[in-house]
Amino acid sequence: MNYRAVALPIGRLLIIIAAFMIFPAGADLIANNPDWIVFTVSALILGTVGTLTNVAFSGLPADLRRREAFLFVNIAWVTFCLAGALPLYASGLDLSFTDAFFESASGLTTTGSTILTGLDQLPPGILLWRSLLQWIGGIGIVVIGIWLLPGLRVGGSQLFALESSETANKPYGRIEPFLVRLLTLYGALTAACTLLYILCGMSLFQAINHALTTVSTGGYSTSDSSFGQFGGTAVYWVSIVFMLASSVPFLFLIRKIEGKPADDRQQIVMLLGVVGFASFAIFLSQRWVQHDTPFHLFTVSVFHVVSVITTTGYAAADYLEWGALVISLFFLLTFFGACSGSTSGGFKMFRLVLLLSYIRVLLRRMVHPHRVLAPHYDGRPIGSAVIEGVLVFAILYAGTFALFGLAYACLGMDILTAFSGSITALANVGPGVGAIIGPSGTFQTVPDAAKWLLAAEMILGRLEIIAGLVVMTPDFWTEA
Amino acid sequence: MNYRAVALPIGRLLIIIAAFMIFPAGADLIANNPDWIVFTVSALILGTVGTLTNVAFSGLPADLRRREAFLFVNIAWVTFCLAGALPLYASGLDLSFTDAFFESASGLTTTGSTILTGLDQLPPGILLWRSLLQWIGGIGIVVIGIWLLPGLRVGGSQLFALESSETANKPYGRIEPFLVRLLTLYGALTAACTLLYILCGMSLFQAINHALTTVSTGGYSTSDSSFGQFGGTAVYWVSIVFMLASSVPFLFLIRKIEGKPADDRQQIVMLLGVVGFASFAIFLSQRWVQHDTPFHLFTVSVFHVVSVITTTGYAAADYLEWGALVISLFFLLTFFGACSGSTSGGFKMFRLVLLLSYIRVLLRRMVHPHRVLAPHYDGRPIGSAVIEGVLVFAILYAGTFALFGLAYACLGMDILTAFSGSITALANVGPGVGAIIGPSGTFQTVPDAAKWLLAAEMILGRLEIIAGLVVMTPDFWTEA
Repeated sequence: MNYRAVALPIGRLLIIIAAFMIFPAGADLIANNPDWIVFTVSALILGTVGTLTNVAFSGLPADLRRREAFLFVNIAWVTFCLAGALPLYASGLDLSFTDAFFESASGLTTTGSTILTGLDQLPPGILLWRSLLQWIGGIGIVVIGIWLLPGLRVGGSQLFALESSETANKPYGRIEPFLVRLLTLYGALTAACTLLYILCGMSLFQAINHALTTVSTGGYSTSDSSFGQFGGTAVYWVSIVFMLASSVPFLFLIRKIEGKPADDRQQIVMLLGVVGFASFAIFLSQRWVQHDTPFHLFTVSVFHVVSVITTTGYAAADYLEWGALVISLFFLLTFFGACSGSTSGGFKMFRLVLLLSYIRVLLRRMVHPHRVLAPHYDGRPIGSAVIEGVLVFAILYAGTFALFGLAYACLGMDILTAFSGSITALANVGPGVGAIIGPSGTFQTVPDAAKWLLAAEMILGRLEIIAGLVVMTPDFWTEA
Repeated sequence: MNYRAVALPIGRLLIIIAAFMIFPAGADLIANNPDWIVFTVSALILGTVGTLTNVAFSGLPADLRRREAFLFVNIAWVTFCLAGALPLYASGLDLSFTDAFFESASGLTTTGSTILTGLDQLPPGILLWRSLLQWIGGIGIVVIGIWLLPGLRVGGSQLFALESSETANKPYGRIEPFLVRLLTLYGALTAACTLLYILCGMSLFQAINHALTTVSTGGYSTSDSSFGQFGGTAVYWVSIVFMLASSVPFLFLIRKIEGKPADDRQQIVMLLGVVGFASFAIFLSQRWVQHDTPFHLFTVSVFHVVSVITTTGYAAADYLEWGALVISLFFLLTFFGACSGSTSGGFKMFRLVLLLSYIRVLLRRMVHPHRVLAPHYDGRPIGSAVIEGVLVFAILYAGTFALFGLAYACLGMDILTAFSGSITALANVGPGVGAIIGPSGTFQTVPDAAKWLLAAEMILGRLEIIAGLVVMTPDFWTEA
């Protein structure tokens, strides 16, 4: 194992995270809040650790091979969650270390579950730091999803492998040509979203924070009432458009903007199809129940469906009071997730497309066992390795959901809270179902042990489970 | 499509079902209950229909090819559920046709969910007919599971294909050499169970009924309090032993009894492992909570775990009052099911074994992509067609569970009742979770539309989903 290859990028990224702490420090300095010292000292500590790591492991450049890459993503997630927790723990909020780590992990994985209440009264530094954690996490997830996971063939994602020399030593395509364009796109989306939020009546601070957590499909807000604090419908539609934009494959967006032919269209069609179907079902089920204008009700229905399926997790109303059908639909939508190569989490639409295509092929094969049939994606036939990856991911996804849910029930949580908490963490959505962790609840009262498990499950979700399990196998450690 | 090949066996089996109606007719005649006429007339009608079908389609024998076999299992389930419902509908119970069909389908599929209350006051004919429906269904399920499904390659079951000439015309192994031995074993188990139940203090009528529904892992009882009516621990252990005996592969039992080497051992080990683990967890969680002797508590823990995992569904206490962990465990155990080639339903242990072995192989492959590794079952490497079948079954199982659960929520059932109702029907267990359909509840108050869907889901569970979906594809009907 070449530990240099693992340590160097982690050291560099720690310096970047430290640099971002300038913003909350500045916000607190302007607001005359003493936490600016906490952010400054945290930045110095993390910057020093990052620099020392780089010095300690400096020398010739080190290739990131398969095993190093697996180790890197695992250590990176834990390290950065710890780094993000540092100023939260040291701040004037008087958080326990458990709560600080939970909030940081929920931020960086862009989950958006929170243990904080009274957000409206919090100092600006903490609020901005939470939003920045999601924003940093969001672009990190896009880069890992485009560059690293396909090369590692995690859960069928090799379907989206960049052009690569495919040697044993460097199984990854070249991300460098895309990196600047990805950052530019991400920044432009954030800026446009901020501007439009301001035009819809948000303050500058509200607009920046919500833009940061919209384009990262994170879902942290600056108010306990989340999007319920904003009136009218315009702000919802802006949010819907940018949540969706951040949930389609970023490479698709880049190719479209550059006027090049873009494939990977089928998961976007599937996403819009599911959104349309679920929104319409919820709208119809509430049309004659709620006292609301049809357009506003339709807006709110679409907003919540998009919020959950893109794994953002904003709420504008407590939709859990809308009856068993709506609760069940939101519970199920929590599993889905949007497109790969975006900031969203969950099962992902390309897997759903492949799964449905494969099951169709299989049923036809049952009738005609000797006919050659293959599942298709975007009009191309798909090989069995990708399908196997998707099937195994589906099983592990269900198994992880069930096992963690059982653990939460062991810890005394009621069955709905336990299992909806499990899937909202694994799919990185944010709110669960039920009074405690629902859209108008908080994870504050959940037992400490459950908070650690939930944070672990969020990270496991971002490792697409498989990359997390691999490093736990004896094989990974025993053989060269 | 050769409809003769489908109609002939159905006609013959209808005559057999008609013949079984002699027993409830006799019981009602002895008890001086007028329903004996209902059973006699029903027997005459079904016997006539069966005979006429045989006459109408008589001639040269017809081979059951793939497509005919798929059609046969689908039509057979619906026909026999209708046949079983006839005397229930015409009896003095004044049931709606929906309720009669639900009770019959729940019986024949050995699910054991009931819409009846006041069982203790019912006439003996009805009670015996419910038990006989489960007993007939049980042996039918064993024969279909050993003979037909492996030939049709449903959900990886080709792993257990009998020796076969494997031609396009007759893909099934020869069941004839086993048929007499299967019936003898089933009868012997029933007789032994009856005898032991009597020794434990049951009346003859109680013993016969409960033996019929124990060895079929059905779960119908003659009392609303199910096994709660019997004291002591001996009766529970008898029931545990016979539920387990009926949940291991019948061919394994036959080979063992004949002193021949028997394979297919691994799913039995897995079954006992899961039972041991779950029982111990429940015992431990209740040890310092309930006022009960350790041995009685342990007995009751094992009894309920075995009752659910073998998909029997007896209850001795309302275990849903034992806290969130126990509820969650029973919810999850409802998915499992026991061994293939037995009377039990659900996901089945061989699939769980293959799934775990495959995921282990896959994780090792992630580290060493170029190494050749295969999942194993009973020490033999397993090919990809079987694994694919298992994976797809798992996906369809989860998907069917979720879709039907959503439908029940649409019909106004609360979320726990809706989803636990969905899995208890699909896995053919019986009781769900929650006050309405839990172990001390009844399906009586469920909406009529939900009763039809639940009955359909029970049948779909017995068709291992895939055999039911195949006949709904256009391919099945359009091509020769």
